[in-house]
Amino acid sequence: MRELTDVPSWEDIGMAHVAIEGMIHKTPVITCANIDSLTGARIYFKCENFQKVGAFKMRGAACTALSLSKDAIDKGLATHSSGNHAQAVARAAQLLGTAAHIVMPENAPSIKVNAVKGYGAHVYLSGNLIQDRETKMQEVLQKTSATFIHPYNNYNIIAGQATAAKELLAQYADLDIVMAPVGGGGLLSGTALTTKYLNSGIQVIGTEPSEVDDAFRAFHSGRLETNQTINTIADGLRTMLGSYTLKVIRQYVDEIVTVSEASIIKAMHLIWERAKIVVEPSGAVPLAAVLENPNKFSNKKIGIIISGGNVDLTKLPF
Amino acid sequence: MRELTDVPSWEDIGMAHVAIEGMIHKTPVITCANIDSLTGARIYFKCENFQKVGAFKMRGAACTALSLSKDAIDKGLATHSSGNHAQAVARAAQLLGTAAHIVMPENAPSIKVNAVKGYGAHVYLSGNLIQDRETKMQEVLQKTSATFIHPYNNYNIIAGQATAAKELLAQYADLDIVMAPVGGGGLLSGTALTTKYLNSGIQVIGTEPSEVDDAFRAFHSGRLETNQTINTIADGLRTMLGSYTLKVIRQYVDEIVTVSEASIIKAMHLIWERAKIVVEPSGAVPLAAVLENPNKFSNKKIGIIISGGNVDLTKLPF
Repeated sequence: MRELTDVPSWEDIGMAHVAIEGMIHKTPVITCANIDSLTGARIYFKCENFQKVGAFKMRGAACTALSLSKDAIDKGLATHSSGNHAQAVARAAQLLGTAAHIVMPENAPSIKVNAVKGYGAHVYLSGNLIQDRETKMQEVLQKTSATFIHPYNNYNIIAGQATAAKELLAQYADLDIVMAPVGGGGLLSGTALTTKYLNSGIQVIGTEPSEVDDAFRAFHSGRLETNQTINTIADGLRTMLGSYTLKVIRQYVDEIVTVSEASIIKAMHLIWERAKIVVEPSGAVPLAAVLENPNKFSNKKIGIIISGGNVDLTKLPF
Repeated sequence: MRELTDVPSWEDIGMAHVAIEGMIHKTPVITCANIDSLTGARIYFKCENFQKVGAFKMRGAACTALSLSKDAIDKGLATHSSGNHAQAVARAAQLLGTAAHIVMPENAPSIKVNAVKGYGAHVYLSGNLIQDRETKMQEVLQKTSATFIHPYNNYNIIAGQATAAKELLAQYADLDIVMAPVGGGGLLSGTALTTKYLNSGIQVIGTEPSEVDDAFRAFHSGRLETNQTINTIADGLRTMLGSYTLKVIRQYVDEIVTVSEASIIKAMHLIWERAKIVVEPSGAVPLAAVLENPNKFSNKKIGIIISGGNVDLTKLPF
């Protein structure tokens, strides 16, 4: 897999898929008659909660790691994150037999720190502000010469995340709509590229909590926007778009729909109760958009990328 | 499908499977590298939590309903139950276009009453004692001429439940052990028949909460035993064996292993957290037995029937 310096082409996404095949699961697509009957839609859930490390992030991390030279891989992989990307980089490094150097904020839940350590990574705790993390990251990079892997503003990350929709559409080609949550925008960018390359007639809809609607605003303004708060239960979506993901999303996404916190919790509950799978709040955001807009989505065949299933079972919102 | 008057043969189970095919889901079998690495075993989870009505009970209810004459089906199906069997009979009746008459105790959670009503069944509330339920059931049967479907002590029920292991072993033939939870014994009886008919070298192990260990005691004493209390979180396993299931289990099951409540909760948590699926406490009992007996199960290929996934998400034990 080569290092990508521009928006991934369809060929790049195909190469990415072949490259990462041995490092990821081909996840199942499930349907739920009960949820279909409630929404009046036909929904195909692409279950990235069953992906390695429990989230789609494994695809992008694997794709980016494999684009590095042998020499760079040997020097190790690095990132700063308190979420699923940290686990994905740690697991990718473990599978490639090299070191992972992960900077995490002191206030990261111990369950997440332990998960990263469980994949054999070196964890460096930093202050909780983003600049604390970045300073600590620079120190670690200088000391180790490891390669920093950005969680979303990276074309190899985008190409990797694009493979989830590629598997979904290989299995169900005749969808009307494909939906994904949007935080930093890696998953939505990849999903949009794959979908439009395959069939420009399929609508691509990004979904985002109203509380952190920078992507919605950036989609309309054409420039990066910021969130004043991060008051959403969808912890995976608190980050903001980057320049690369904004560019792809502006060009390839049809619409971004925002949803309330109550709808996210309702959708998450519905998926757990009826489809019997464990999904994280971020993964329930697309279904929340369907629930909030019944007229828009009824009678449609909808593919939804369930981003992941990493959730603290002792802190559920219901 | 004919009405069975004796222990189902391999041919009977095959006929049952063909008969119910259109009324059930062929559920997936999943593995979890994380749980395998924790237990040192290779575990294949047969996911009846993804079955219609969220539990294996749909198989037996469908099989029994289809063994009735057209005339009997038209008069309706009936049972008394506060659990998954009630939903299964209600759903089977709905699929066959006939009425379901379900007696439920007044203290049944409204979520369960509503689920049964959601399948279009007539619900009759009774007192909470078993004799209250039976009295009310007799009244209803006299008034409606519907056919009573026993939840487990019925050879067609056993033949239906046997089809879960049949699907599992069709997919993974070379297992060392097949495990199922045991309450009334319908699932364990069917699982044992299928497994031993296919390969008598595969061990069949029933698993039961220590708090309601009537099956363990009956397995050794050779006669029906009673439980003094029902203090287990595994609500599906509070019932006791019947004469038919005891007979089959004594002949075809190799061993019954009992487990603590703490192990059940631990196993349930593990399945939710690592395998990302929603399972009810009863469905976690076989994994609890693996966790309690590492030496017995390590390095073995084990098939586990996950009984179901119906659980009140607002009352989780963790």
